[in-house]
Amino acid sequence: MSGNNMLKIGIPKGSLEEATVNLFARSGWKIRKHHRNYFPEINDPELTARLCRVQEIPRYLEDGVLDVGLTGKDWLLETGADVVTVSDLVYSKVSNRPARWVLAVAGDSPYVRPEDLAGCTIATELLGVTRRYFEDAGIPVKVQYSWGATEAKVVEGLADAIVEVTETGTTIKAHGLRIIAEVLLTNTVLIAGKAAWADPWKRAKIEQIDLLLQGALRADSLVGLKMNVPAHNLDAVLDQLPSLNSPTVAGLRDSTWYAVEIVVENDLVRDLIPRLRAAGAEGIIEYSLNKVI
Amino acid sequence: MSGNNMLKIGIPKGSLEEATVNLFARSGWKIRKHHRNYFPEINDPELTARLCRVQEIPRYLEDGVLDVGLTGKDWLLETGADVVTVSDLVYSKVSNRPARWVLAVAGDSPYVRPEDLAGCTIATELLGVTRRYFEDAGIPVKVQYSWGATEAKVVEGLADAIVEVTETGTTIKAHGLRIIAEVLLTNTVLIAGKAAWADPWKRAKIEQIDLLLQGALRADSLVGLKMNVPAHNLDAVLDQLPSLNSPTVAGLRDSTWYAVEIVVENDLVRDLIPRLRAAGAEGIIEYSLNKVI
Amino acid sequence: MSGNNMLKIGIPKGSLEEATVNLFARSGWKIRKHHRNYFPEINDPELTARLCRVQEIPRYLEDGVLDVGLTGKDWLLETGADVVTVSDLVYSKVSNRPARWVLAVAGDSPYVRPEDLAGCTIATELLGVTRRYFEDAGIPVKVQYSWGATEAKVVEGLADAIVEVTETGTTIKAHGLRIIAEVLLTNTVLIAGKAAWADPWKRAKIEQIDLLLQGALRADSLVGLKMNVPAHNLDAVLDQLPSLNSPTVAGLRDSTWYAVEIVVENDLVRDLIPRLRAAGAEGIIEYSLNKVI
Amino acid sequence: MSGNNMLKIGIPKGSLEEATVNLFARSGWKIRKHHRNYFPEINDPELTARLCRVQEIPRYLEDGVLDVGLTGKDWLLETGADVVTVSDLVYSKVSNRPARWVLAVAGDSPYVRPEDLAGCTIATELLGVTRRYFEDAGIPVKVQYSWGATEAKVVEGLADAIVEVTETGTTIKAHGLRIIAEVLLTNTVLIAGKAAWADPWKRAKIEQIDLLLQGALRADSLVGLKMNVPAHNLDAVLDQLPSLNSPTVAGLRDSTWYAVEIVVENDLVRDLIPRLRAAGAEGIIEYSLNKVI
Amino acid sequence: MSGNNMLKIGIPKGSLEEATVNLFARSGWKIRKHHRNYFPEINDPELTARLCRVQEIPRYLEDGVLDVGLTGKDWLLETGADVVTVSDLVYSKVSNRPARWVLAVAGDSPYVRPEDLAGCTIATELLGVTRRYFEDAGIPVKVQYSWGATEAKVVEGLADAIVEVTETGTTIKAHGLRIIAEVLLTNTVLIAGKAAWADPWKRAKIEQIDLLLQGALRADSLVGLKMNVPAHNLDAVLDQLPSLNSPTVAGLRDSTWYAVEIVVENDLVRDLIPRLRAAGAEGIIEYSLNKVI
Amino acid sequence: MSGNNMLKIGIPKGSLEEATVNLFARSGWKIRKHHRNYFPEINDPELTARLCRVQEIPRYLEDGVLDVGLTGKDWLLETGADVVTVSDLVYSKVSNRPARWVLAVAGDSPYVRPEDLAGCTIATELLGVTRRYFEDAGIPVKVQYSWGATEAKVVEGLADAIVEVTETGTTIKAHGLRIIAEVLLTNTVLIAGKAAWADPWKRAKIEQIDLLLQGALRADSLVGLKMNVPAHNLDAVLDQLPSLNSPTVAGLRDSTWYAVEIVVENDLVRDLIPRLRAAGAEGIIEYSLNKVI
Repeated sequence: MSGNNMLKIGIPKGSLEEATVNLFARSGWKIRKHHRNYFPEINDPELTARLCRVQEIPRYLEDGVLDVGLTGKDWLLETGADVVTVSDLVYSKVSNRPARWVLAVAGDSPYVRPEDLAGCTIATELLGVTRRYFEDAGIPVKVQYSWGATEAKVVEGLADAIVEVTETGTTIKAHGLRIIAEVLLTNTVLIAGKAAWADPWKRAKIEQIDLLLQGALRADSLVGLKMNVPAHNLDAVLDQLPSLNSPTVAGLRDSTWYAVEIVVENDLVRDLIPRLRAAGAEGIIEYSLNKVI
Repeated sequence: MSGNNMLKIGIPKGSLEEATVNLFARSGWKIRKHHRNYFPEINDPELTARLCRVQEIPRYLEDGVLDVGLTGKDWLLETGADVVTVSDLVYSKVSNRPARWVLAVAGDSPYVRPEDLAGCTIATELLGVTRRYFEDAGIPVKVQYSWGATEAKVVEGLADAIVEVTETGTTIKAHGLRIIAEVLLTNTVLIAGKAAWADPWKRAKIEQIDLLLQGALRADSLVGLKMNVPAHNLDAVLDQLPSLNSPTVAGLRDSTWYAVEIVVENDLVRDLIPRLRAAGAEGIIEYSLNKVI
Repeated sequence: MSGNNMLKIGIPKGSLEEATVNLFARSGWKIRKHHRNYFPEINDPELTARLCRVQEIPRYLEDGVLDVGLTGKDWLLETGADVVTVSDLVYSKVSNRPARWVLAVAGDSPYVRPEDLAGCTIATELLGVTRRYFEDAGIPVKVQYSWGATEAKVVEGLADAIVEVTETGTTIKAHGLRIIAEVLLTNTVLIAGKAAWADPWKRAKIEQIDLLLQGALRADSLVGLKMNVPAHNLDAVLDQLPSLNSPTVAGLRDSTWYAVEIVVENDLVRDLIPRLRAAGAEGIIEYSLNKVI
Repeated sequence: MSGNNMLKIGIPKGSLEEATVNLFARSGWKIRKHHRNYFPEINDPELTARLCRVQEIPRYLEDGVLDVGLTGKDWLLETGADVVTVSDLVYSKVSNRPARWVLAVAGDSPYVRPEDLAGCTIATELLGVTRRYFEDAGIPVKVQYSWGATEAKVVEGLADAIVEVTETGTTIKAHGLRIIAEVLLTNTVLIAGKAAWADPWKRAKIEQIDLLLQGALRADSLVGLKMNVPAHNLDAVLDQLPSLNSPTVAGLRDSTWYAVEIVVENDLVRDLIPRLRAAGAEGIIEYSLNKVI
Repeated sequence: MSGNNMLKIGIPKGSLEEATVNLFARSGWKIRKHHRNYFPEINDPELTARLCRVQEIPRYLEDGVLDVGLTGKDWLLETGADVVTVSDLVYSKVSNRPARWVLAVAGDSPYVRPEDLAGCTIATELLGVTRRYFEDAGIPVKVQYSWGATEAKVVEGLADAIVEVTETGTTIKAHGLRIIAEVLLTNTVLIAGKAAWADPWKRAKIEQIDLLLQGALRADSLVGLKMNVPAHNLDAVLDQLPSLNSPTVAGLRDSTWYAVEIVVENDLVRDLIPRLRAAGAEGIIEYSLNKVI
Repeated sequence: MSGNNMLKIGIPKGSLEEATVNLFARSGWKIRKHHRNYFPEINDPELTARLCRVQEIPRYLEDGVLDVGLTGKDWLLETGADVVTVSDLVYSKVSNRPARWVLAVAGDSPYVRPEDLAGCTIATELLGVTRRYFEDAGIPVKVQYSWGATEAKVVEGLADAIVEVTETGTTIKAHGLRIIAEVLLTNTVLIAGKAAWADPWKRAKIEQIDLLLQGALRADSLVGLKMNVPAHNLDAVLDQLPSLNSPTVAGLRDSTWYAVEIVVENDLVRDLIPRLRAAGAEGIIEYSLNKVI
């Protein structure tokens, strides 16, 4: 029981690594990788971290080698590992939206639906999920493991179609490919080993990590706005504010003015500011947030 | 009329590109350039963007190929394009001050005034403006187009003088050149095509962009200050604050103290903070702003 | 008196340079290095800056060539320069903790205490301090100046032990070395020449720089938190806050809620936020600070 | 007459610079560019070099500022400079074949011949040559100067067609463009100013440079082959050798064998070697050449 | 039959790519990869090339998608593809010696023989070969696929042993691992599809490629030596020469001297030259070779 | 006695490292540096190598830690180490000429001779040699150790003069400095420890290394020329050849022609080839050499 207060966490290495290390930093944990050392340093005596390939993290949780980790929904499915999914953490290298595994063919090929591919060769890194997708649909295909540069395979004539991951579709289109079906929607997930989740101390620690990661992620898409509003315009200004977030309104020493503060979606600001000005707000300032909880 | 709600914007490519993309990001528009794609993505369905050389943007607005864009006052003059100047946006790759096109000669040459260059060869990228400058002054010179590395031309003996742009004069001096006249003061301008400006929807959209860009630029040189002040020092502290910006003063629950907030010029802070401390302010904190409108 | 209002400051070049330039930027002084120019530009007409090796700055202050500068406690001791230490500024390239000069030997060597090294060869860049250390301890050794890559010397059999600087011990361990003693604890210091310190104007300017540098450094480890708290939970929330920092509490227009703001140690936030939530705080946001004075 | 023995040479700066400096090195002249110096060093007391834009070199020769230089046939035509073309030097950044300025349109556009472009906008860096091309063909078009990234202009809808330079057509095709005509075939040329060419010493020096540059360029596409051949196979082996190059045949001390050496086109070797082996040659070795004159 | 004269060749992409492209260049085929194009250009109208992962090439030959290609003996075994092995081509990214797949454990672990690993977890990229190795030895282990950074897995405690490829053992040792068995010796092989090998034209073309690749590889480890030898020393000098290579000896016009040429192993030269000098050879020069056939 | 057959060699690390590793490669020894290993690999079982700073190599030879090494004449003098100088090896990072330590002052300073610097401060990395230089000349100066960027010190007003190393004087001039005296001429030297030099096996090995390094260095400045010459022009052609190198002349099977081969200075070729052509030589080819002994 004693001495058990140490949680082993798997951090994704490679394309998701930098975004993950940044997310942890904003959440309150500095992970530092040392050139000649395999164990990244982390400024919390209750944590030890391992950098692992995103494909391997589910297996290490299942085996109990690690307690908690981040991986993709896709690789969780592919490995079929028996672990607990704690929460979705929608972030990635490029954007903060979920990614899709899509079935794509050459732009000038005759294929328009998955069933047109009967008898064809499909290249993919996500072998198991793809095989199951075609089996479930009753379409007989040859699925081949692709060691990377999958999009190029169709162009080069090495495969008839591919199943590949994409966030914006840009790379797919840039290769002259055409998407004909969506195979799987995926995003980063926080997962825990079953034994760790059953241990009260470990579960509390995992939940603390989850709370802070969520708070930092939320702050990415929000900003703080402050403005001064004369009493006679206050209602008009408050009417413009998104109803979901309740503003903080404080009277100023000069009693006919109010200071109004609110946290809003970053994406709304460019439309909101002109309306707030029109409603009588003055001295509008916008500032960044680290965490919103 | 319908379906017209799309504005085509020209973003400067090259030395001003990164600063411009950053300015738009702070203003609320994310412009993402794709490796294999000519159309930068922009997160506003009412906008399409093109990356163009700053010298070409005025022409594209004049031709109606684009609706709005950013260019330099210098290239607007050089091209003589018939467009609307919406506003000045004083920012650049290096600093946030206007730049100057100057007439410079070798440090050890006998030339001290423009008229000493009669009969000489002048190298410049700004051919038309330079020719007009010397014609207006009645000084006969040979103006040659320079394909870059203009400062070196005087050093190498390939020209007698140059007309070149500079922000700080550092590069000019580092080449051992001496400035003998200022030919043109320039800065970035937001310009609109005449037809776009005459269209009410497009004009409103252009004005929204202008408002937000100005707000983001203003925030670059301002910071927020907060401090706590006991009631008996409040007037002394308020006296120190720049008169142009009115502070937000709120009484605290503990009634003998006030929370004072103000937005001030970044450049004044290093002198203001010692004076605020002397006047009785405590717990002074400074924070960054994204936009000030 | 007249014309004397110029302070010459020495900025460390090399491994500490970027961190120092950033610290000055956050403090209110922009130092810009020009490609073909030896004098970094600084946006304060009362300052001129020189980039110097950290080892040379004490000497230049002693000689009166510069008025004020940043160096390490280690090199101040090594040079024995007769200057005024204004304050400690604990920051570095890697972390914001002090560094240590340690005595290290090969992991598999028999040496366990400094006295075991009698008759051995010690390689170090800190020649004088190391010699004095062994002389004071009465241990006869041969101390050799090392021109860099000191850790490798023990591995390669070129020295029996080394005295080398380390922040985390990671590089030492990665070379398979074992630390057997700490020779010196060091950090960055702000130092002034004696004549400059005696001049009232220069001393006031040095103290202004010190105040702002300290304020910026302090802000590195602090963040601002804001939250809304219903009246009935206010005491429970205030009880959670670190006692050293007094929160700003303001009543909201809607009288049963309070807005609470506080500045806290960055490192405490990940534990504090769950407790604040449990105590009834809502809408907790965290934001960054530039300066705290 | 005296002191005249100095030739001023213009070396192309930019995309052709590295290939040119390498060619001169193989020809016997080392050109070294110094970081903080405008005059590249050249190891021949009879030469001074200037790095100039390829577009500017013809003008500097015409003005007598330089004596000799390298430029493209395209820019020679565009500038219309009155200089002497000494020789063709077919080399470039990418390959050693001539390049073409081609007229290209969007792959999916209706244009198939130049005359289909009547009334259209053509973007190009080669303004004068392009205007003349369409005038000579009697096709009325608007030719606009392009400041770079010309291929993208058609894709982006900023121009209807472009005139752009290409060696292999790869970039044109990669942009989805279709070539509909060839406007100009171009390659690097060695040109001389008229006064320099009329001066016997300068002309002899220019001819020496030309001879060596040609010798080094020729060596790029040739290799040396050596082999041993028994007397009874000598005729069969010699029959395989390209008739244009006469082999060197020497009897060996062991009188029934001959050593055969020949210089052949690099591109023929992979087919020649199997045939030489079949004809009885043994110990075939291939080696590189620096110059062939 | 007609129109069949095109051979499709698979070139390894990734770590072996640069070495392979260089080898083909020295053999007489220039392969150029285009930035926006999937088909590397090759200067032989009878060849088309595809860049493929080394693991995928055997499969594409088996399927008849490609005719000939380069892969490793290891991946040929792992895939079990039914193809023709034309020849061994011992070259690699690092050296020109075969590589080994070795079984390695932590340096301080108790394992000394493969059988000590019974019940342990083995991480490897070469899943099939490794499973067969342990099955053949009758040792029950859990073999897990490793997605890279395999050496680190033992250090990090994620596996008990690894099977990894190494040329010099350096990386293995640098991770503190200990090799306890050799699982497989491997090198690059030229392989052909069965149908292609059965087609006379394709087979001849493959044999031409093989001949030239072998000739270029051989030249890597050989150099040419030339020297002049007076008649009375000729036998002494010839005695020093390696007996396998017969020298070319030609009498000079000045009849008492001979010119001697020979091709020798690069590695012998540093010992051979002092001996040749001692035996009376003069003017010894060494030069490089492109091909030796 | 037995087991003594191992020579320890010190290879300069840093600015001379790449040139040295290349020189050894051309001489027959491949030195490979491993990322995580301190001992560079060398393909000779009789050698072990250490990478050391050029300033430390003399000391390690003197102490017997190493047997042989490369350093500069300057650091040999500065350290005063008691070792054997085996030979001069004139090569460097930049060129293959000796370098000079020069005394330089600001271009616009009044100093013209060393004696004008009496009472001044001199900054240099070569402390001992510089002190001795001024003592020998009887000029009282303050010599300060400079930790790099020495040229800038005069420009920045931190020193009155510097003693700095230069090959071409370019950097000195680019800083606006003026050379007023030469303090020391230096080049790379091969040095041996006294004990190693006294050991016959070690001395023979050192002499082998010296012979091959000299042969490779010599080949850098030489090339091979071959040409065919008709009998009636043979004397005219031979007359053009530099008298120091005797050509190899062999009669061809076709008896009226001769094959002539010679090794000549690279720098002479550009003038020699035109003369050989004029004298009747045909088919002149130039090729590179690896070693000339």
